[in-house]
Amino acid sequence: MAEAKVLSGAGLRGQVVGQTALSTVGQEGAGLTYRGYDVRELAEHAQFEEVAYLLFKGNLPTREQLNDYLNALMKLRELPLALKEVLERIPAQTHPMDVMRTGASMLGTLEPERDFSQQQAIADRLLAALPAIMCYWYRFSHEGKRIQCVTDEPSIAGHFLRLLHGKAPSELHRKVMNVSLILYAEHEFNASTFNGRVCASTLSDMYSCITGAIGTLRGPLHGGANEAAMAMIERFSSPQEAIEGTLGMLERKDKIMGFGHAIYKESDPRNEVIKVWSKRLAEEVGDTVLFPVSEAIDHTMWEQKKLFPNADFYHASAYHFMGIPTKLFTPIFACSRVTGWASHVFEQRANNRIIRPSAEYTGEAQRPYVPLEQR
Amino acid sequence: MAEAKVLSGAGLRGQVVGQTALSTVGQEGAGLTYRGYDVRELAEHAQFEEVAYLLFKGNLPTREQLNDYLNALMKLRELPLALKEVLERIPAQTHPMDVMRTGASMLGTLEPERDFSQQQAIADRLLAALPAIMCYWYRFSHEGKRIQCVTDEPSIAGHFLRLLHGKAPSELHRKVMNVSLILYAEHEFNASTFNGRVCASTLSDMYSCITGAIGTLRGPLHGGANEAAMAMIERFSSPQEAIEGTLGMLERKDKIMGFGHAIYKESDPRNEVIKVWSKRLAEEVGDTVLFPVSEAIDHTMWEQKKLFPNADFYHASAYHFMGIPTKLFTPIFACSRVTGWASHVFEQRANNRIIRPSAEYTGEAQRPYVPLEQR
Repeated sequence: MAEAKVLSGAGLRGQVVGQTALSTVGQEGAGLTYRGYDVRELAEHAQFEEVAYLLFKGNLPTREQLNDYLNALMKLRELPLALKEVLERIPAQTHPMDVMRTGASMLGTLEPERDFSQQQAIADRLLAALPAIMCYWYRFSHEGKRIQCVTDEPSIAGHFLRLLHGKAPSELHRKVMNVSLILYAEHEFNASTFNGRVCASTLSDMYSCITGAIGTLRGPLHGGANEAAMAMIERFSSPQEAIEGTLGMLERKDKIMGFGHAIYKESDPRNEVIKVWSKRLAEEVGDTVLFPVSEAIDHTMWEQKKLFPNADFYHASAYHFMGIPTKLFTPIFACSRVTGWASHVFEQRANNRIIRPSAEYTGEAQRPYVPLEQR
Repeated sequence: MAEAKVLSGAGLRGQVVGQTALSTVGQEGAGLTYRGYDVRELAEHAQFEEVAYLLFKGNLPTREQLNDYLNALMKLRELPLALKEVLERIPAQTHPMDVMRTGASMLGTLEPERDFSQQQAIADRLLAALPAIMCYWYRFSHEGKRIQCVTDEPSIAGHFLRLLHGKAPSELHRKVMNVSLILYAEHEFNASTFNGRVCASTLSDMYSCITGAIGTLRGPLHGGANEAAMAMIERFSSPQEAIEGTLGMLERKDKIMGFGHAIYKESDPRNEVIKVWSKRLAEEVGDTVLFPVSEAIDHTMWEQKKLFPNADFYHASAYHFMGIPTKLFTPIFACSRVTGWASHVFEQRANNRIIRPSAEYTGEAQRPYVPLEQR
């Protein structure tokens, strides 16, 4: 074996391991772009399905293309009976990301990707079906109800809220969920996306790539941060309590979720967007605790540590104001990020070499086998 | 963002991205070692369960430790009813690796890893249960039979053959399957293992790591090679035909599976072991075609291209002689490699930083959003 090169950054931090045309993260003057568009502009003006189209195909759709795409996605929402029967067998106390992972994998047994010419169709199918996979299981296991998986909500944002609550959402809720799905859609070589690309590099099928990415996003260091932020915020009943509690956590060096970022150094461009919408929702529901508590933690973290809230922090209160159970926060992230994951699989396949790094050996020197009787 | 460093090797080839004490691959004088032991010695003298114990815990077990471990694994073989019901809903034509992926994921919803103190127990459970996940589905979907998932075969090798064939295997078959499981158990930072480590680096659960690794192994550039080798070998009915066919494939620059290796440059140490056993099996069944055809391809590849057979090539005929359907070859690989995968998850967790590399951006320059009506 040729002498291998030891990389300096733990966790491959700052190491360029491949190419992408999908997004830039942390470039000066443009915190996050999808195919060249600032995510803040997209969140202000676009629909999530426009962004999905953009990521998949490289350009924003025309009105006709977007209408066709919306119609196509609406037709892909029903779940096969066998998948529903599987979801009914998953206990209520299961981690919802385990449900997503199992649902995506099961769908792959029923509607496999036979060759890569199907990759866009499979990506669309997963994008359209994931909200129902989550909500069918959630409402069956928690309410004993077998819901309809098809709604007449044209957007995925509205469709998800409708499936979850069993009634048409308000325009404000549709808008905020749409913004949220845009903000979470894509983020370069984060761990779940990189996991999906490693899988794709063996030329495995799309479902395997997405299933692995869901399992990776599940980790508390990755997708679980908005749930952890919610759990923290909920512990305080006033801004004053939140300030004192935060100072105490900092003193004890507790991990405080929802702040700072591996790539962004000064601010997370997604935060300024979702914070505004969380505030609007707080006004709508007449909240006098959760949003002020969130702001108090935010200010304290900045004053004490110069740490800024990332995308996850104000997502916690925003989702809460829309009546979303905390344990479904990370699954929503997956419903959005499936667009980025699948787009990265397309890219990996288009210019592939199997991802097979090396390791530094730190174990025992070579030693002779000792027969069982002599141990 | 600090200037990122561009890595030269495509697919991270030759790049050291982490540490391991589990194995060395391609070191001079020792083609493959598990925790310091030459895999050829282990394959000659050890049981697969000894090797699993070695990988998990760092040292070979005493007789008493091994007996305890064998007994513990035997008690973990039964599948939960809900998992059987899921397996019964997976169609017969499904790719068996999709079944393994879904089965492992579903087990994770029923018996989750609640914290990392359970990691060894979950690894043992998966090791004990994967053969039944595969065989229960296979025999239900192909024969309409609900098999018993518990057998009195003490070894995983014997247990698997018993589940598959519904009768006690011969001593020779037990031995060869045992050898095969040892050879496939661990192989440093191959794509599926690295995928599992990326997942583990977000502190996700063991089932997510193994599910992703199964999906990655599924790819034809990775675990699928022994199945592809079998398909090729079966096309020829004599050594002469095989020589001519191989020359023809080389001339057409067809991909010939089961030869060469990303890391090994001169030979694959696992090949010499399995080749001997494949020959023994050929003699046992009175084969006069498959083994001679395999040897003819082997010799032709060496003469023409100086390419050597890797672990997969003679595994194809060996498995075939034991009556194993070709499409179950890669799932057996997974039943063995789960030991290596889980051991790597233990290692990643013990010294973790989230694996989050960077990418070189090759896409569109920043551009302003164009409203839908103006496109």
